[in-house]
Amino acid sequence: GLCSDKVRFWKIKDGRSLLLPPCLVETPEAHVLERAVLESRVREVEEENRQIRLQLSQAQGTAGQAADVGNYGNAVWGASADTGPEDVENTAEERTNHTECPRSPMVQKCELIHVACVCAGHNASRDVVTLVKSILFHRRNPLHFHFITDAVANQILSLLFQSWMVPSVQVSFYDADELKSEVSWIPNKHYSGIYGLMKLTLTKALPSDLTKVIVLDTDITFATDIAELWAIFKKFTDKQVIGLVENQSDWYLGNLWKNHKPWPALGRGFNTGVILLYLERLRRIGWEQMWRLTAERELMSMLSTSLADQDIFNAFIKQNPVLVHQLPCFWNVQLSDHTRSEQCYTEVSDLKVIHWNSPKKLRVKNKHVEFFRNLYLTFLEYDGNLLRRELFGCPTQLQGALEELDEDDQCYDFRRERITVHRVHLYFLQYEYTLTGDETDITLVAQLSMDRLQMLEAICKHWEGPISLALYMSDAEAQQFLRYAQASEVLKNRKNVGYHIVYKEGQFYPVNLVRNVALRNANTPYVFLADVDFLPMYGLYDYLRKSVVQLDMAHAKKALVVPAFETLRYRLSFPKSKAELLSMLDMGTLYTFRYHVWTKGHAPTNYAKWRTATTPYKVEWEADFEPYVVVRRDCPEYDQRFVGFGWNKVSHIMELDAQEYDLMILPNAFMVHMPHAPSFDISKFRSSPGYRYCLQTLKDEFHQDLSRKYGAAALKYLTAQRNI
Amino acid sequence: GLCSDKVRFWKIKDGRSLLLPPCLVETPEAHVLERAVLESRVREVEEENRQIRLQLSQAQGTAGQAADVGNYGNAVWGASADTGPEDVENTAEERTNHTECPRSPMVQKCELIHVACVCAGHNASRDVVTLVKSILFHRRNPLHFHFITDAVANQILSLLFQSWMVPSVQVSFYDADELKSEVSWIPNKHYSGIYGLMKLTLTKALPSDLTKVIVLDTDITFATDIAELWAIFKKFTDKQVIGLVENQSDWYLGNLWKNHKPWPALGRGFNTGVILLYLERLRRIGWEQMWRLTAERELMSMLSTSLADQDIFNAFIKQNPVLVHQLPCFWNVQLSDHTRSEQCYTEVSDLKVIHWNSPKKLRVKNKHVEFFRNLYLTFLEYDGNLLRRELFGCPTQLQGALEELDEDDQCYDFRRERITVHRVHLYFLQYEYTLTGDETDITLVAQLSMDRLQMLEAICKHWEGPISLALYMSDAEAQQFLRYAQASEVLKNRKNVGYHIVYKEGQFYPVNLVRNVALRNANTPYVFLADVDFLPMYGLYDYLRKSVVQLDMAHAKKALVVPAFETLRYRLSFPKSKAELLSMLDMGTLYTFRYHVWTKGHAPTNYAKWRTATTPYKVEWEADFEPYVVVRRDCPEYDQRFVGFGWNKVSHIMELDAQEYDLMILPNAFMVHMPHAPSFDISKFRSSPGYRYCLQTLKDEFHQDLSRKYGAAALKYLTAQRNI
Repeated sequence: GLCSDKVRFWKIKDGRSLLLPPCLVETPEAHVLERAVLESRVREVEEENRQIRLQLSQAQGTAGQAADVGNYGNAVWGASADTGPEDVENTAEERTNHTECPRSPMVQKCELIHVACVCAGHNASRDVVTLVKSILFHRRNPLHFHFITDAVANQILSLLFQSWMVPSVQVSFYDADELKSEVSWIPNKHYSGIYGLMKLTLTKALPSDLTKVIVLDTDITFATDIAELWAIFKKFTDKQVIGLVENQSDWYLGNLWKNHKPWPALGRGFNTGVILLYLERLRRIGWEQMWRLTAERELMSMLSTSLADQDIFNAFIKQNPVLVHQLPCFWNVQLSDHTRSEQCYTEVSDLKVIHWNSPKKLRVKNKHVEFFRNLYLTFLEYDGNLLRRELFGCPTQLQGALEELDEDDQCYDFRRERITVHRVHLYFLQYEYTLTGDETDITLVAQLSMDRLQMLEAICKHWEGPISLALYMSDAEAQQFLRYAQASEVLKNRKNVGYHIVYKEGQFYPVNLVRNVALRNANTPYVFLADVDFLPMYGLYDYLRKSVVQLDMAHAKKALVVPAFETLRYRLSFPKSKAELLSMLDMGTLYTFRYHVWTKGHAPTNYAKWRTATTPYKVEWEADFEPYVVVRRDCPEYDQRFVGFGWNKVSHIMELDAQEYDLMILPNAFMVHMPHAPSFDISKFRSSPGYRYCLQTLKDEFHQDLSRKYGAAALKYLTAQRNI
Repeated sequence: GLCSDKVRFWKIKDGRSLLLPPCLVETPEAHVLERAVLESRVREVEEENRQIRLQLSQAQGTAGQAADVGNYGNAVWGASADTGPEDVENTAEERTNHTECPRSPMVQKCELIHVACVCAGHNASRDVVTLVKSILFHRRNPLHFHFITDAVANQILSLLFQSWMVPSVQVSFYDADELKSEVSWIPNKHYSGIYGLMKLTLTKALPSDLTKVIVLDTDITFATDIAELWAIFKKFTDKQVIGLVENQSDWYLGNLWKNHKPWPALGRGFNTGVILLYLERLRRIGWEQMWRLTAERELMSMLSTSLADQDIFNAFIKQNPVLVHQLPCFWNVQLSDHTRSEQCYTEVSDLKVIHWNSPKKLRVKNKHVEFFRNLYLTFLEYDGNLLRRELFGCPTQLQGALEELDEDDQCYDFRRERITVHRVHLYFLQYEYTLTGDETDITLVAQLSMDRLQMLEAICKHWEGPISLALYMSDAEAQQFLRYAQASEVLKNRKNVGYHIVYKEGQFYPVNLVRNVALRNANTPYVFLADVDFLPMYGLYDYLRKSVVQLDMAHAKKALVVPAFETLRYRLSFPKSKAELLSMLDMGTLYTFRYHVWTKGHAPTNYAKWRTATTPYKVEWEADFEPYVVVRRDCPEYDQRFVGFGWNKVSHIMELDAQEYDLMILPNAFMVHMPHAPSFDISKFRSSPGYRYCLQTLKDEFHQDLSRKYGAAALKYLTAQRNI
């Protein structure tokens, strides 16, 4: 029964059988035990010696010797590497957890560590960020992430890392779709779907000169420096090609329920959430053919995989046990139900990698789940900007832009803001949009921060078309937004809204930078450049699409103006028609926008003319005009030098005019500004005189740039400005 | 040495080949040989172990990792203590960093570690929290914090820790004022003032049976497990009584400027931001007399201390060098200007403790300041709730309350909220208030979260009296609030506003719990129970104080009602008088509060009667009455079972009535509700049916409690409820 199973298990696993199957331990052959004891004592002291030698050599500055000692140590590790799980509990590896430094002496300083991850879809792209943060938080080595991604994850992660700019981190992407054919023939019941199988194809997907890689699932959290895990490659015997942790559930024992028949595996089998892949050797032994043969043969009886790649890895290992290097279980603490993971750790310091491999994720029942959850939440809400720090003593290529700035410049903060790169996470939530056949579709483009979140539902009710929103938030706020969106019926049921997070940094609100993120990620030929505190009239979406055709926007440089109004009242019965709007204007329940404080912004709209207008009419640009317009997607972007508040829309309209866009007022369109408390940045900066001074400086610079770009014609803006 | 090392080194490698090939295992007689070989092998490596340890300790006089070697090394340490930094740079302790474990083997699992800290005033009480967080984040041992505090810090920190409820953390407080006499005779120029000197008195201040303690300044950040530092006590020689890091500035060299004459010190002297105090031994050698004698003698020529306790510690050590145990410099990396700290670390893993001992604090210029700042910010904004985790395998006393809850209860979340203890940080900002002579003073009591911050300035303009505000925020938001308040001219200049942070936890807004925090911390005989989105009429403060006398509140159970109105307009010209208010009511620019949505809340106020009333009039309680009232400070608290929204004020007024408070409407008082966007919690919960169901359950329970407390009379509330 079980015992003889185990015997076979051990024999196969361990040719040298230094250690015995549990059932044989009962036998009188005490010498075997003695030997085991002596053996481990030797290993113990040797490891101790290795440590002290290392100190000694370091003190004497003889690096070479240190390395040798290190290697010597490895040999010892190697010998102890492939012992059974019970034994792993007390190998030198674990014991040295308590005495060994997080920086494993076996990884060279600045040695590059490779990590591979299969990531597809919006949600996985969000989850993987927490994994990456937990790795970056502890890491001291340069890292190279290899992502196998679908189109969605590729778009999200490539911009995220590009804007994250973490020193000493490289990222490569590989198209999962190209790999599908490799595994699509395997019937798979696992929820991970076809992507769950792609880990099998890494030898083919990754560069042929990549020798080793750590492969991780997206639901992993690191509690230690990944270099410690990387170091274990050095402990592989010459035969070993793959490092894995034993599976911590009884699944593969096949006794979970009547007729439960899992794929073949050694004992409990192995979990593939964390894999050390020795790619070079895998290629040499012809892995690609081997796993296929295994899969084909097993599928004849099994018909389909239940746990995706894991079934195939295990069936493969069952046939080729010598190829596996078993990792101590704390390198993949599996939090599935009925997990045996608790036997893995007695100390916090034992915990290296946590694997949320239960469908329940954070809500999984576990004795120490509170601790695990806190660790996870730490990274979930951790400010990713803090991970941008340089590695000590490792060469990096920092943008010297900062150095060039003059710290004594009165507007240093403004200029600094201009070169600040904000992390961007595109499509933070599920997004589905299919281009309409006709070329008239329009995206509502807007930006907001936490304090305008309440507007989203209303806007969705007033605009049924696609929306591109950029949200300026901290990592923690983004999680708050996520909970809010997932709790809102209205938002849940809208899939054509793209939510793009621009992560907070610095003391200004980079409003135009945020607007540009929303603008760039609109996927329609036209965009409606709006603000989040406005509600479009009902039916505006359809009306604008008609107007786009009427006014032949496709072939003419035009900006269609949607006249703006405002209410100072909270509970407003929104006007159903232009007629109703006009009567509300007369009654004084509505006003033209900024009527009380700043009329110039919309004066050129000529509200008087609009009242009676039935056809679109062209107006001339005037200073400080800042209407809300519909333009072609290829319009100029917002000028990002304008941060905080002031001139952020004005400058954009000015540039449209400089590019000779016709400003056309739409006779039957309107939008209404809803009241809200003043935002921080306003209250913060309107007061400061320094702010006003710097804003003026920025304006002047902007004017100069305009004339440079558009020649003498642009001088009119400068004079217009002067005349105010 | 090196050559012979190599020889032995190679011999070891040969040695290993003595380990037997597996083939021998089979034959029985092999066992004897095996065993002999192994035993000799063990002897061999153990002998080697002794040899290299000796070498190592001789090479640079260190504690490797075993205590015996440690002690041997200490002698060398003591000797090297006064030989200056160059020597310290390459001590083994520093080197072993790269291989030494965060968890030093010299600290017992679950061994209690004692930390002492002098903390006075509002700002220090804020700073010390970041220090504590950094310690808790890395710690794996039970901790006992000993705080020497003034009254302010005592009040703040005692409630903070009491509400923080971190397992395995004890806190004791010692009255700094009682210690003042010990040091007040010492003239001190340092900005830390008299508190800067109190570290000298710890042998007296702390319990006489406390043998060892780590003493820390509040501007310290830990980057490692404090147990590592605690372990160094074991390396003290019998003579050594105090552990210190060398000072990393040239101050004590006395060559900073012409006639710069610092206090006497060994070389650069020592920094007292981090001290290992061996209290037991200090008491034995008569430290209290010794430092006094030193101070007295030096003061004859120096007249005053420049760096407070540090000058005296250094003068003392200069005379008694054998008493000091010099710590590796990474235990106190000093970020003052011109610091030599960079020579301390080559690796992140070297950094153990960062000391922001520059007046510039985070803005100090330093090559790696970005890294240090990120480390600091990590803890500054870190969610303190995540530090509430149990220690693995250390016994703790957790409140079993949670276990008792039934997870399947439909209102589990509500009930859970009731037993959740929220961290509270009282007086987050500077607060100064002196009781007025007469017994009539009134505190405006209110609560808010981030999205109402903009109201604060307006409220301060409308109410000149004391204010007690409870702010419901996350750790990160509290920092944002701090920046906001420090940037606001209005808030900066108001010292009689107490800001109390209640830290977010759970998914509900515990509105009544937050209100109670504000209520409890009002320091006047009367309180005005308001809401933050209301603006009191100008002069309300004075009017209420008069009314309190008129209506003899001191001797009668009365609740004075301030009638509530609302505007739906943002830019409101606030009514200067009741007359003006009435005309605005007629014009429809103002309404009675909740006129459009929920009149019952204020119906009993009887606005019609109020229009013409000139004297206070009594009204009877009615169901759902929720006026804003002035009551004696000793009024009942809000019922905390009501979370999120609904019934939180209603239940309070009901209880006032149950206690037979007279409800008196004030004829010449009013307040106006300012418009704002609906808050998250409303939009989130008003929709949910589960929420409505649970709210009803809570109401029923509340009614039952009322009848229990107030007998049959209270049944009227139930019936009143039913009749709705």
